[in-house]
Amino acid sequence: MANTIFKNAKILQTNDDHTFDIIEGELWVKGNEIAYIGDGKDASSIAKDDEVVVWDRTIDCEGNLLMPGFKDAHTHTAMVFLRSFADDLPLQDWLFKQVFPREDQLVEDDIYWLDILGIMEYLTSGITSNFDMYFFPPKNAQASIDCGFRTVQTSGMNNFGAGPEAVEENYNIVNGMGDLVSFIIGWHAEYTTSMERMEGIAKLAEKYKSPVFLHNSETKTEVEECKERWGKTPTQLCESLGMYEYGGGGYHCVHMDEEDFAIMKRRGLYAVTNPASNLKLASGIAPIKRYLDDGIHVAIGTDGAASNNALDMFREMYLMGTLAKVRENDAACVPAEEVLYSATAQGARCMGLCDCDSLAVGKKADIVLIDLNQPNMQPENNITKNIVYAGSKSNVRLTMVDGKVLYEDGRFDIGFDPKEIYAKATSIIGRMR
Amino acid sequence: MANTIFKNAKILQTNDDHTFDIIEGELWVKGNEIAYIGDGKDASSIAKDDEVVVWDRTIDCEGNLLMPGFKDAHTHTAMVFLRSFADDLPLQDWLFKQVFPREDQLVEDDIYWLDILGIMEYLTSGITSNFDMYFFPPKNAQASIDCGFRTVQTSGMNNFGAGPEAVEENYNIVNGMGDLVSFIIGWHAEYTTSMERMEGIAKLAEKYKSPVFLHNSETKTEVEECKERWGKTPTQLCESLGMYEYGGGGYHCVHMDEEDFAIMKRRGLYAVTNPASNLKLASGIAPIKRYLDDGIHVAIGTDGAASNNALDMFREMYLMGTLAKVRENDAACVPAEEVLYSATAQGARCMGLCDCDSLAVGKKADIVLIDLNQPNMQPENNITKNIVYAGSKSNVRLTMVDGKVLYEDGRFDIGFDPKEIYAKATSIIGRMR
Repeated sequence: MANTIFKNAKILQTNDDHTFDIIEGELWVKGNEIAYIGDGKDASSIAKDDEVVVWDRTIDCEGNLLMPGFKDAHTHTAMVFLRSFADDLPLQDWLFKQVFPREDQLVEDDIYWLDILGIMEYLTSGITSNFDMYFFPPKNAQASIDCGFRTVQTSGMNNFGAGPEAVEENYNIVNGMGDLVSFIIGWHAEYTTSMERMEGIAKLAEKYKSPVFLHNSETKTEVEECKERWGKTPTQLCESLGMYEYGGGGYHCVHMDEEDFAIMKRRGLYAVTNPASNLKLASGIAPIKRYLDDGIHVAIGTDGAASNNALDMFREMYLMGTLAKVRENDAACVPAEEVLYSATAQGARCMGLCDCDSLAVGKKADIVLIDLNQPNMQPENNITKNIVYAGSKSNVRLTMVDGKVLYEDGRFDIGFDPKEIYAKATSIIGRMR
Repeated sequence: MANTIFKNAKILQTNDDHTFDIIEGELWVKGNEIAYIGDGKDASSIAKDDEVVVWDRTIDCEGNLLMPGFKDAHTHTAMVFLRSFADDLPLQDWLFKQVFPREDQLVEDDIYWLDILGIMEYLTSGITSNFDMYFFPPKNAQASIDCGFRTVQTSGMNNFGAGPEAVEENYNIVNGMGDLVSFIIGWHAEYTTSMERMEGIAKLAEKYKSPVFLHNSETKTEVEECKERWGKTPTQLCESLGMYEYGGGGYHCVHMDEEDFAIMKRRGLYAVTNPASNLKLASGIAPIKRYLDDGIHVAIGTDGAASNNALDMFREMYLMGTLAKVRENDAACVPAEEVLYSATAQGARCMGLCDCDSLAVGKKADIVLIDLNQPNMQPENNITKNIVYAGSKSNVRLTMVDGKVLYEDGRFDIGFDPKEIYAKATSIIGRMR
């Protein structure tokens, strides 16, 4: 494992009050951890006792910004095969006529290659970990491990495949696969899942003291139909089943009522917002200001490439902040700092990756180098606001995960030839036309 | 002037019905015009009679996509100095306490350097021309000419500076400055302008048979106050003053009524939408579906960097399409092809640049090379939808304006050192803190 020194850097420091400071100096990575942040003069203290540390590489950041990698807190990575395959259709046609029939044709090996394509895209956007829900979780996890990428898996369990026993099996398999991957209990959504299976999930959460995540209140129809079936919103139903004893959260969380907000606050749940997907599928605009006002945690996800269609946190950040402004008719609400905090620190905590949430000594080295010397980042009136409101994938010069540089200046170092990965993806969708 | 051959390209072809085809082959640029599109076998026919054409450079596109450059149809380029300077504030505070007092301090030379920074940013996003409203139009035009960039200027005339006589002077000056720049009659907005000055603009439009552009119905308050003053919406007021005899259009066009739509349709006006700015300033979401249903032309602009904060057409395209979907609660409305048509062909026509609207023989060589061999463009299920829904500045490999490559692989060829331009912008805003 290599040891790397970043010098001449601006370094983004995360504060507990959801603000940021920027210091200038050096950041030293020893193995997979941040070992030192400072002016470099006292960096020799890193070596313990008689230890000899070899510094394999020194990267001159030329005054550019080191920041914590983005955490993409809701993904269906392998859905890249359906990118731009069936857009501009009514939601039901898109889902039932285009998406589901083709997902049915995926085999385990397909998932592996499609995951690698998605991981490449994450890296280009400075994303260092994702919270993934898809078929064959151990296969997803293997793709991440082989690339050196960090992934938290959850289950998409519903009525159309294996039940809670398979969720438990995957929980135990993936949580034993090594430090880069983990598994949190989850399931698809109320509208696809029987009461028996929901109760099974609640029991698993109790058994493993695990948080629980699911698609929650993405569309108005979903909430209305849930209320017809159970007399409760999805959030209230999960609460009544005891599913939130150990926290968790919901993906989307667009259409919420007062009691839902109260439950989320009381249980410390995460609202994982997916603004690009919610626009493109005409689902609505999430009540982000309300979440923040109530102290409810907000994380950000891209959702899958079939609905978004890009896996780009710069787009999501812009949308989280500015959609809130137009929703509330208030240009001052949800400032850029809150957005950046959601995209980094809150995302990490939502995924159980508390040692990846910020740049500090002892934290995992999940780091992005942002090029400030491009026109969209000039002048540097406010670097945080520049990142959220003007930033772009083109500003990502380097993405490091777990101490290893996986992407730099447009090139990948993940052990696969990009052309081979593109050909695999083309061949998989080609089978299904 | 150099002559360039693009070979091994996919070439985007624009159809009159707002769709696109993609052909494979070569595109030859002679001087500042497209001289040939085809398989290359009959390209020798370009040379007329005994003419000897020297082909200075052959660019292997490696299967990537040549497309017409984006047209940014509403800009205040020099406002880059206020990027991320005063965000997350109520609209009135932002405008009156932050923006206006600092704009007052700008001198003509500042505009020149700030324009160059903005032009650099346009090039990184594949934008090959802009429709600019700002102080000192001839200075703006000079910056574009010196960079080799194409700009259409208009006036931001209101009550706080020179009147219609200055608009006329600038009209004649800029329209005499050469092929890269032109001037269309325009003014700021009803809420900043006296009836006398509005009538002066109408007379100029009549005299020069020019279209007229202005900020129109950006906010609900603007429309309500206009109706209180004149008993008419801004669109109806302009129509009643005879301002639309030769066409034109409005920037923003968010809050429109039935009569406004009828006028826009009858006069062939352009609705220039600015979705990112409208979100960030909490102005609203424009009725794009209605415009398209009525056959009203839609073009796209970034607005200035003080309100957006990026000058990036990929962001605007995504927003134009997807905001319409959420506004109408219809995932099928405003398909990607309409968006791409607005960002290219309609933008060009709106700006009077009909010879820059598409890739065809005899058209100006305003061309972008889009890298399809990046993860966000794979698989190539639908290249048009990929560009609109998944595209990014990172896909722009090359931007050519008027036959000259101004941007390629992250480097600029505009005759200025980027570091010098960044330092100028930093120094200008530094004077005003």
